[in-house]
Amino acid sequence: MNRQWQLARRPVGDPSSGDFRLVETAVPELAASGSVLLHNRYLSLDPYMRWRMNDAKSYAPPVAIGDVMVGATIAEVVQSNDSGFEPGTLVLAGGGWQDYAVAKAATLRAIDTSVADAPAFLSVLGSPGFTAYAGLMKIGMPKAGETVVVGAATGPVGSMVGQLAKRLGCRTVAIAGGGEKCKLAIEHFGFDAAVDHRDPDLAAALATACPNGIDVYFENIGGRVLDTVVPLLNDFARVPVCGLVSQYSDEGSYPDETRLALLMRDVLVKRLTLRGFIVTDFAQYRDEFIELAAPLVAKGEIARLEDVVDGLENAPDAFLGLLKGRNRGKLVIKL
Amino acid sequence: MNRQWQLARRPVGDPSSGDFRLVETAVPELAASGSVLLHNRYLSLDPYMRWRMNDAKSYAPPVAIGDVMVGATIAEVVQSNDSGFEPGTLVLAGGGWQDYAVAKAATLRAIDTSVADAPAFLSVLGSPGFTAYAGLMKIGMPKAGETVVVGAATGPVGSMVGQLAKRLGCRTVAIAGGGEKCKLAIEHFGFDAAVDHRDPDLAAALATACPNGIDVYFENIGGRVLDTVVPLLNDFARVPVCGLVSQYSDEGSYPDETRLALLMRDVLVKRLTLRGFIVTDFAQYRDEFIELAAPLVAKGEIARLEDVVDGLENAPDAFLGLLKGRNRGKLVIKL
Repeated sequence: MNRQWQLARRPVGDPSSGDFRLVETAVPELAASGSVLLHNRYLSLDPYMRWRMNDAKSYAPPVAIGDVMVGATIAEVVQSNDSGFEPGTLVLAGGGWQDYAVAKAATLRAIDTSVADAPAFLSVLGSPGFTAYAGLMKIGMPKAGETVVVGAATGPVGSMVGQLAKRLGCRTVAIAGGGEKCKLAIEHFGFDAAVDHRDPDLAAALATACPNGIDVYFENIGGRVLDTVVPLLNDFARVPVCGLVSQYSDEGSYPDETRLALLMRDVLVKRLTLRGFIVTDFAQYRDEFIELAAPLVAKGEIARLEDVVDGLENAPDAFLGLLKGRNRGKLVIKL
Repeated sequence: MNRQWQLARRPVGDPSSGDFRLVETAVPELAASGSVLLHNRYLSLDPYMRWRMNDAKSYAPPVAIGDVMVGATIAEVVQSNDSGFEPGTLVLAGGGWQDYAVAKAATLRAIDTSVADAPAFLSVLGSPGFTAYAGLMKIGMPKAGETVVVGAATGPVGSMVGQLAKRLGCRTVAIAGGGEKCKLAIEHFGFDAAVDHRDPDLAAALATACPNGIDVYFENIGGRVLDTVVPLLNDFARVPVCGLVSQYSDEGSYPDETRLALLMRDVLVKRLTLRGFIVTDFAQYRDEFIELAAPLVAKGEIARLEDVVDGLENAPDAFLGLLKGRNRGKLVIKL
């Protein structure tokens, strides 16, 4: 029996648990050669999934109503029609919100649990870690002594951005939701300073944390936080645009009709670079990232934090909490 | 006697002729060695001067009340304390809105009128031409077959952008103000298509002119035109932000509070690059530009259009007309 979470309806604004439907189906059967039956062990939950619930063109097609919710998984091969993957092998897959999935062997990558435990391949050594690396190194291009500000800084992308920037000799400033996460950013992830995006005087707090302005703003948030960051950006600052979690459930209703004009003015006057990216754009740098990060993770030199929730049945609630910032660290469902 | 236009007061919104004051002063005297007395022959008038009238941080300090309005000039050396510049030499200088100026020799560049006449060194071979080259080649990076859309397309920057892009095999689309300028863009400057930014259905006109979307948008305008361009930008489009003339007199009052959110969404989803630049950021490429452009200009292969207005006394009115788009081609005052 294969339990799977399907998209039941498209949310308008904040999603709710009724947007998902748990269905029991037969375990899928292997068909073509080169395919593999997977038993999902860990499911990654990530903010981008909110966007995939919308019926809108994005960098990937939306999830159709009645389709299984998409997601990266660490899975065990249980049957194989491909000589490259023996049963028992642990792989990184796009297994989705379900117990079992059939996948083409070419889409899988075996993971080496002698380097790190399985959830690490969904966090520091997986897409979040590599996203941090690609956006920071290839777009942000920080130099020693520069100030790097990171949105959603205790999340799996942001926490890696902060640590990589710190290793390069930058001043690192976290933006996080609430005092507890700010403490986590400094004490666990080693940021030099942290500000709470719920602070009514966020602008003053951020200015104090960035006495030399901001050279790189790693954008995960959008909306009001972006407005606060823009005036502090230095000439020639770089803004890798990785995510806009505050905008995924709406199109941004913060009322100030001059915001775009002010942003563009600063883009011109300060010669800013804003550049959007998706991690797959940088696939050619994945080996370079793993060569850097795997030994650091193995030696425990990269701080990690995973928020592991037990049971596929809890995926929607955990996901809704993620969108509200209720998780602590990389949210992973253990199946 | 030296006539000079001083800034009389800071305009709020659209400037008017009362913001300038014509003053007669003594011809300045040479002092330090290495300095030169210049007699201005041509004065360049450019949209950026509107911004310099504001008391706001920009990429250059504002003009102070009572100071001479700034501007590039082609000037004749009339006295010299520097062995590099004989009297009679024509130079490119920052002589300002006046008859005479004293300048440091190190800030001057002699011009070669065997290549082109003097006004060309304020247009196709001067800062506008080089601005076009640097922004298009170093940020826009167009490839043959791509679509390049150019704001303020019949101005000295835009018309050069279009011609350079066309030489690279791009489809070039002009945005210009009014039917006459659209005709000029196609017939004189060789754009493949032109749309009138006053067209009430600009969005449809631009979509028709860009059947394969937009790969490079050379931004000179801002405001409503930018809003119209953004939805047509292709994945990985580049937006060199060179100017925002529609925003210089206000901070952008076009009322739509979702504009910034929509722009940022597209920056992310389409992996856009927005990058502001000032031509001086690319000083290292000036020789490369001159090597390319000077022979083309000398052979008449670059279309030029200069709008030469006689008499320093007419500078403010000509400048106010420039801000309203009333000039045709590069606006130059002949002294």
